[in-house]
Amino acid sequence: MKIINSQRVRAEDITEAGAQNARIRWLISRKDGAPNFAMRLIEVGPGGQTPIHKHEWEHEVFVLRGNGELINEKGMSHPFSEGKAVLIRPNELHQFRNTGPETLRLICVVPIRHP
Amino acid sequence: MKIINSQRVRAEDITEAGAQNARIRWLISRKDGAPNFAMRLIEVGPGGQTPIHKHEWEHEVFVLRGNGELINEKGMSHPFSEGKAVLIRPNELHQFRNTGPETLRLICVVPIRHP
Repeated sequence: MKIINSQRVRAEDITEAGAQNARIRWLISRKDGAPNFAMRLIEVGPGGQTPIHKHEWEHEVFVLRGNGELINEKGMSHPFSEGKAVLIRPNELHQFRNTGPETLRLICVVPIRHP
Repeated sequence: MKIINSQRVRAEDITEAGAQNARIRWLISRKDGAPNFAMRLIEVGPGGQTPIHKHEWEHEVFVLRGNGELINEKGMSHPFSEGKAVLIRPNELHQFRNTGPETLRLICVVPIRHP
């Protein structure tokens, strides 16, 4: 077993095109011996957003703090806030935007892809 | 995509032997179309605990609120609090206990087992 202090894990800027004021901390990943999935903490500053993109794998998200909106493949906005869980299924276009005054904080779990 | 209000998901008592004052809400699971893993919210009241047990699958946990201790296979106690992530590897004996005055709240992710 392993206990990790999330605030001591390095926050890396998300540099993918379209991302703005967004960082990721890889809390639990393959290098920790996780066999199937990885847990990340995503932080989006006020006015910030994750890239709008899609991929073959799913996201399972829990909103820790803040207010935001989820943009779907039709450009529609779905508001969310603390205490919401979000499932993004494989190949669904999605973007998370911070719509509030504080940093938006999300736990985001993804499968570990085995080559 | 699907947005779920965690407080509207039914809280079920954890009835496994050794559990005490502990409930689980299945936020995202196979019935939502999750292909690989399930996200649950576990709530342990003051003085409560999850069962001490082990299983072939891992847990990836994020501590949302409260203070607790994790008991390992040697009976040793590891304290944790809000903002910690915990990896329990397959076949590791473990138990979560609430050591604080408020409800301990954990996000706990497990693989979906395919028969």
